[in-house]
Amino acid sequence: MNKQQENNFQAIISHAKEYGFVFPSSEIYDGLSAVYDYGPYGSELKKNIRDYWWKSMTQLQDNIVGIDAAIFMHPTTWKASGHVDSFSDPLIDNKDSKKRYRVDHLIEQHADKLEAAGKKEEAGKLLADMDALLGEENFTGLKELIDTNKISCTVSNTCNWSDIRQFNLMFDTQLGAVSDESSTIYLRPETAQGIFVNFLNVQKTARMKIPFGIAQTGKAFRNEIVARQFIFRMREFEQMEMQFFCRPGTELEWYEQWKQKRLEWHQSLGIAPEKFRYHDHVKLAHYANAAVDIEYEFPIGFKEVEGIHSRTDYDLSRHQEFSGKKQTYFDPEINKHYIPYVVETSIGLDRAFLMVLSNAYTEEKLQKEDGTEDSRVVLKFAPKIAPVKLAILPLTKKDGLPEIAKDILDECRGSFKCFYEEKDAIGKRYRRQDAIGTPFCVTIDHQTKEDNTVTLRHRDSMQQERILISELKERILNEL
Amino acid sequence: MNKQQENNFQAIISHAKEYGFVFPSSEIYDGLSAVYDYGPYGSELKKNIRDYWWKSMTQLQDNIVGIDAAIFMHPTTWKASGHVDSFSDPLIDNKDSKKRYRVDHLIEQHADKLEAAGKKEEAGKLLADMDALLGEENFTGLKELIDTNKISCTVSNTCNWSDIRQFNLMFDTQLGAVSDESSTIYLRPETAQGIFVNFLNVQKTARMKIPFGIAQTGKAFRNEIVARQFIFRMREFEQMEMQFFCRPGTELEWYEQWKQKRLEWHQSLGIAPEKFRYHDHVKLAHYANAAVDIEYEFPIGFKEVEGIHSRTDYDLSRHQEFSGKKQTYFDPEINKHYIPYVVETSIGLDRAFLMVLSNAYTEEKLQKEDGTEDSRVVLKFAPKIAPVKLAILPLTKKDGLPEIAKDILDECRGSFKCFYEEKDAIGKRYRRQDAIGTPFCVTIDHQTKEDNTVTLRHRDSMQQERILISELKERILNEL
Repeated sequence: MNKQQENNFQAIISHAKEYGFVFPSSEIYDGLSAVYDYGPYGSELKKNIRDYWWKSMTQLQDNIVGIDAAIFMHPTTWKASGHVDSFSDPLIDNKDSKKRYRVDHLIEQHADKLEAAGKKEEAGKLLADMDALLGEENFTGLKELIDTNKISCTVSNTCNWSDIRQFNLMFDTQLGAVSDESSTIYLRPETAQGIFVNFLNVQKTARMKIPFGIAQTGKAFRNEIVARQFIFRMREFEQMEMQFFCRPGTELEWYEQWKQKRLEWHQSLGIAPEKFRYHDHVKLAHYANAAVDIEYEFPIGFKEVEGIHSRTDYDLSRHQEFSGKKQTYFDPEINKHYIPYVVETSIGLDRAFLMVLSNAYTEEKLQKEDGTEDSRVVLKFAPKIAPVKLAILPLTKKDGLPEIAKDILDECRGSFKCFYEEKDAIGKRYRRQDAIGTPFCVTIDHQTKEDNTVTLRHRDSMQQERILISELKERILNEL
Repeated sequence: MNKQQENNFQAIISHAKEYGFVFPSSEIYDGLSAVYDYGPYGSELKKNIRDYWWKSMTQLQDNIVGIDAAIFMHPTTWKASGHVDSFSDPLIDNKDSKKRYRVDHLIEQHADKLEAAGKKEEAGKLLADMDALLGEENFTGLKELIDTNKISCTVSNTCNWSDIRQFNLMFDTQLGAVSDESSTIYLRPETAQGIFVNFLNVQKTARMKIPFGIAQTGKAFRNEIVARQFIFRMREFEQMEMQFFCRPGTELEWYEQWKQKRLEWHQSLGIAPEKFRYHDHVKLAHYANAAVDIEYEFPIGFKEVEGIHSRTDYDLSRHQEFSGKKQTYFDPEINKHYIPYVVETSIGLDRAFLMVLSNAYTEEKLQKEDGTEDSRVVLKFAPKIAPVKLAILPLTKKDGLPEIAKDILDECRGSFKCFYEEKDAIGKRYRRQDAIGTPFCVTIDHQTKEDNTVTLRHRDSMQQERILISELKERILNEL
């Protein structure tokens, strides 16, 4: 990340705080690392993105239904999914500084240093060696790599390292008060398993025929060792996932379809196509036969915002094995029982939020009528996801203008989110609406009393037009 | 709960499972105690209730904004709120059976026995004694009460009891990988504190003036010792809370207003007024100066579905004390700094769901045209919260009827949730829609091809009428 990128990113974070989008969690207690709260405008924006996803993925689809599974699940779920055994990162401690590192981060840091010193080839070899060793059962090779490369701690500058150990990223807690019933359970690290364990319940009760999908939004938790970059990587986050169950052998066709469909969804948020790219996974997880990330160009560079994975029949097979309950589907068209294959689309809601916010954030230089310069910060959200749709602003607090404004408020607020304000100069009020991304402002002035017209002001162009009050609501609804 | 009530309740639970509303969590692993998953129709119903609450409490209010705070909070939050020290139940173990009891439940059980044996006065005295002793710092008195009354274990029948100990109901977990940074945090037992710690952030960034409210929906967790009664008392549940901040001395007026407003909200779900009653708290929590429950008549009797509490300035004062940061508001109208008083409305979303489901569940005897008897189960949801609004049913799979039906689907699905089905006899399809509570079915038949009319069937009355396709969408929208 260069200086300019860093500044842009910091400007967005400050704006998000100042205008009630995102606060550090429990800020009066100096915050909680890598956890954030959404404020008045942030909670509306987040809800609008979630609702838009939900509608796109369920209501507008022929063969996808939703569920809302609990965060708590039977602990065997995570044995079956592989998370208990292998959802972990290798850690190492420097014995002098007591500082702890994720092994891959430590080595990558060293590779960066080599590259900066012009040793590009050496750096490349180091990373390739690391990739090969990370998959191994024990960490002897990885430890040797650190030792032979004389990788040192940034604090103590020594190479006095502990052994490498695995650290599981799942949060655990104890369920049940009665000691002999008490058991360790986990906070789900992904929502997907809530869909897999309910596969047959959903298929039977909603009478679904393959191919069909199950969609879900909800919280997930990962005890990230290095959580950072604002809401990009948090310890508590929200996922929006869809698992699509299909006939074995057809999964790669569906994979291609979903890869395309999901990219179109992102673009439908009003974001330019060139801000996205696909990143194919070269090294696939053992359960996948195809995987791709949709990356968005954040201020901090291109980063994953959604993953599309062809997960084969791995999860359902494992749950069949661990539960002892058949997870097969009878396909009447080919007269066969089989465990369906799964194509998954998995997007982080908080990342989608950061994408939408970053894309909307614009600093503009303006020319005033008197020739002097002015500037504004404007959030150019697509109207359909903007936190507030219409600001209703009587020009003055008297002469009956607030009464007319409140009639408009009553007329519109049942259909979309409105904001009412009667204080301060109108220019100042416009700027505040720009800063929270309100696409439309309507101003009620003295002419309104004569001809029932109001001024409709458009956020991005700042153009104003005079329209009849009676046409206002329909006009806004059409723009959403 | 009598036998009839028990049967009704069981019928609702079975129906909820069979028709995809609520499943036991991780059922293939034999479930997780007191945790449930919402299925295809349940997740829609739950979302609709949540969205209806959110719209009522934010979009339609002049002075309430929303937030979405994290489940994880700084642990000092729960010191300040009092949960670390006193959010607990007293437990006792029988040394012979090893069975553990909540002390109040054990004593209440004994009182029931006394009453059944005609010793009503004795039972009353026992309960009064218990109430007096439950508030004490140590449990010597409570233990003596158990001993002198010779209260025995239902399993071992002995009075060989352990001492009484406190059991905290908060779930805890460890945050952070680096051991010297690692700290115990809690899963929030209520959403309210996420609002209190953000009070000033919200007030400043959204430029709110007192009186104003902050609303929030989200998960909360309590390690209930005896969790039971389906989704009525769960270990993981969802709250919908609003904290209303007002000038000291005005709180009881606002309390009365919210008490009234919230009751009206419940009735607006299409539930008869006589199904509700207020239950005033006689014994108030130390921080409250007024408190009432809105109770709904569940099949298991009248039970709390929402609480309205006048919490004084307790929470903000405690956070000021523990954080060392001023939690005062400057009131320009009276030119004074003060810590606001708070009136809270707190409803359990899962309980609201159970209320709506219980109220909607109806078994009806019907007379067929040929004089024989028939029956149906119908969920009489208010249309605005029903999971599916319109079922679109071509009478047959051929003659171009599905094509017309799909045009209707394309026309309507952007505006509300539709369901399409072309298989099975039309009567059977109507019954299935009744069972999931779909208020409207539209049937496309051969006449449709001649005059562009369809049959609109109303769920509750089962009346059918012939209307033009061109009028269908507006008609349904008006009914929602």
